[in-house]
Amino acid sequence: VIADVSPTLPLTGTRFRVSYLVAATASEAEARVRSIALEQTVEFPEDLLPDGWLRAEMPGRIESLAPAGAEPGWYRAEISFPEEAAGGDLLQFLNVLFGNASLQPGLRVIDFELPTRLSRGPRFGVAGLRSRLGVAGRPLSATALKPMGLPVAELALQAYQTALGGIDIIKDDHGLADQTLSPFQLRVERCAEAVAAANRETGRRSIYAPNITGDPREVFERAKFARDAGAGAVLVAPGLAGFGALRALADDPSFGLPILAHPALTGSFVSAGAGGIDPGLFYGTIMRIAGADVSIFPHAGGRFSFSHATCAAIAEHCSRSQDGVLPAFPSPAGGMSVARVPELKSFYGDDFVALIGGALHREASTLVEASRRFVAALAGEPV
Amino acid sequence: VIADVSPTLPLTGTRFRVSYLVAATASEAEARVRSIALEQTVEFPEDLLPDGWLRAEMPGRIESLAPAGAEPGWYRAEISFPEEAAGGDLLQFLNVLFGNASLQPGLRVIDFELPTRLSRGPRFGVAGLRSRLGVAGRPLSATALKPMGLPVAELALQAYQTALGGIDIIKDDHGLADQTLSPFQLRVERCAEAVAAANRETGRRSIYAPNITGDPREVFERAKFARDAGAGAVLVAPGLAGFGALRALADDPSFGLPILAHPALTGSFVSAGAGGIDPGLFYGTIMRIAGADVSIFPHAGGRFSFSHATCAAIAEHCSRSQDGVLPAFPSPAGGMSVARVPELKSFYGDDFVALIGGALHREASTLVEASRRFVAALAGEPV
Repeated sequence: VIADVSPTLPLTGTRFRVSYLVAATASEAEARVRSIALEQTVEFPEDLLPDGWLRAEMPGRIESLAPAGAEPGWYRAEISFPEEAAGGDLLQFLNVLFGNASLQPGLRVIDFELPTRLSRGPRFGVAGLRSRLGVAGRPLSATALKPMGLPVAELALQAYQTALGGIDIIKDDHGLADQTLSPFQLRVERCAEAVAAANRETGRRSIYAPNITGDPREVFERAKFARDAGAGAVLVAPGLAGFGALRALADDPSFGLPILAHPALTGSFVSAGAGGIDPGLFYGTIMRIAGADVSIFPHAGGRFSFSHATCAAIAEHCSRSQDGVLPAFPSPAGGMSVARVPELKSFYGDDFVALIGGALHREASTLVEASRRFVAALAGEPV
Repeated sequence: VIADVSPTLPLTGTRFRVSYLVAATASEAEARVRSIALEQTVEFPEDLLPDGWLRAEMPGRIESLAPAGAEPGWYRAEISFPEEAAGGDLLQFLNVLFGNASLQPGLRVIDFELPTRLSRGPRFGVAGLRSRLGVAGRPLSATALKPMGLPVAELALQAYQTALGGIDIIKDDHGLADQTLSPFQLRVERCAEAVAAANRETGRRSIYAPNITGDPREVFERAKFARDAGAGAVLVAPGLAGFGALRALADDPSFGLPILAHPALTGSFVSAGAGGIDPGLFYGTIMRIAGADVSIFPHAGGRFSFSHATCAAIAEHCSRSQDGVLPAFPSPAGGMSVARVPELKSFYGDDFVALIGGALHREASTLVEASRRFVAALAGEPV
């Protein structure tokens, strides 16, 4: 038996709440929620916890529990956790939120309050990115350099043409890593030069966003290289590089570029049967508190299967008012086209990044003209 | 239209195969698999691909497609990808395997061949870890220091007691990060000292494995600190830190410690409705090729819901013969007890790491005695 070992340190005395949907019968619901509250914190038999602060405050605490509306067999539970469980660490916050709990069926994270020490978001956000690009009053435009396998000179030519056509953000396709066919450093130098050359002609401030996704050392080496080579933003897939990579880059004053988050390998989080994490919360709030200035996700009616309701929830989470956390741009993608721009505008308003990838090559006989049409459509001009 | 831009570089000429289960009707199955093959590589309209190598070899290629046994509405498809798509990069391999595809419903990764350049696994593996611990002929024993919120002195006392009782691997609970109540550096120093002190008494070689999960900079700083402080292994949760963190640590000759992989936040990968990644493949092969010497997962009949078949598949994947990839230890956990050791031994044989966490505190009146009973049970001695 562990004796009372109440901490002698100053404690915050504050707790943050997480809301879950929990599959359970009426008779087992409270016990199940209680077991989740323990699992996500002390992970210890409750009766063996020492007396004092640790037993009273360290475990998750059930703040509310009630049937979840019209869904029979599901309960909505709010569990509060002491700020001491997460510390100031985004990864440990995600761990408390859903670490071991992700291994349980019938459990979905649907909302949370952010611990005080984690109340920060993207470095630039909507206003900051608009200011860097010099674009107001219309959605931003973005495209992706592709297909994988093209030599660097061809990718750089695409970067030049799309920037000349006025596209704001020209990103690497998320499948461009450091393969021999388009090695990272050469690609970044050439594409950044190409966008700069186009900007000199147009007088605009289009930016190139290379994919810097990599292991813990690579992601920082690539970030530094990209910044020094003149990239105006970077693309990171946190499902591959980890959410800590985004947060660390956004927190690093010596880096100082906007970050686009790509959803590669994250789909299972939001499609885990009836479990997982709410997609609005995941692609909106979690990407934003991880430091994404732009969160890319598949728009309804493209090559993927997100519903309009899901996309609306993501956009709402990207702009929801939250102390200390700037709004981020939602970036609907995955099979978009110029013809769908009016629909996207009426759905998302002005504060989104429209992303057309491979399909841009279909929009006109040249990529420059296709890009012009795309940007004109976003500005509400006749195409 | 992009002209033929076939690469002038030497190409590997080799492809690796990935097997998927795909939900589809008979009439749409081939088109769906074809779209996945494009999505995971060129992500580009097929008719706009340039002629030559890029059109012929870069996209995924359907190698086989047939109804998936008894499951109506499901097809088993093998898609091959050129090694050039993944390069030598584990993260890009995972991206090709399931990056954007994770966002599609009704798609499950069930097997793959590893690209030649990625045919490496843990640094130590089963034989190497046994050799470091000096333990042959029985499963290894492991426990976790907990509960979260205990001061460092108490955690170190647990480390001492469990090592004195003969437990081989004493790891941090995965919820111990760098919170104020047990700061990382102080905890690692004290717990490593405690295990060393116990080893001096027992003559054994028990090891302490601190949790070094963190953002890209922290994970390497913590790894180095842990090694210098005398830790004998480390614990990393790749669902939080990213799979690249494991691989980079396993590849780093200046680090040189065994790695335990914790499954926090990975549950959605294997429970994504009918999609996601096969759990044997995920907790067995993927953890192993990421560099885990030990892969922790919830055993059937504990606090989680993995089936016996799933656990058997994970163990099989951990030991499956694969060129250049050492076998790893499966480590069933999540609500185990000494009473279940015989069952675990008959299920997993000798090459597994039995992990009893909080429940160890129930096994005897002292933690030293509880640890002795645990190890005795693993050795097949009467408890």
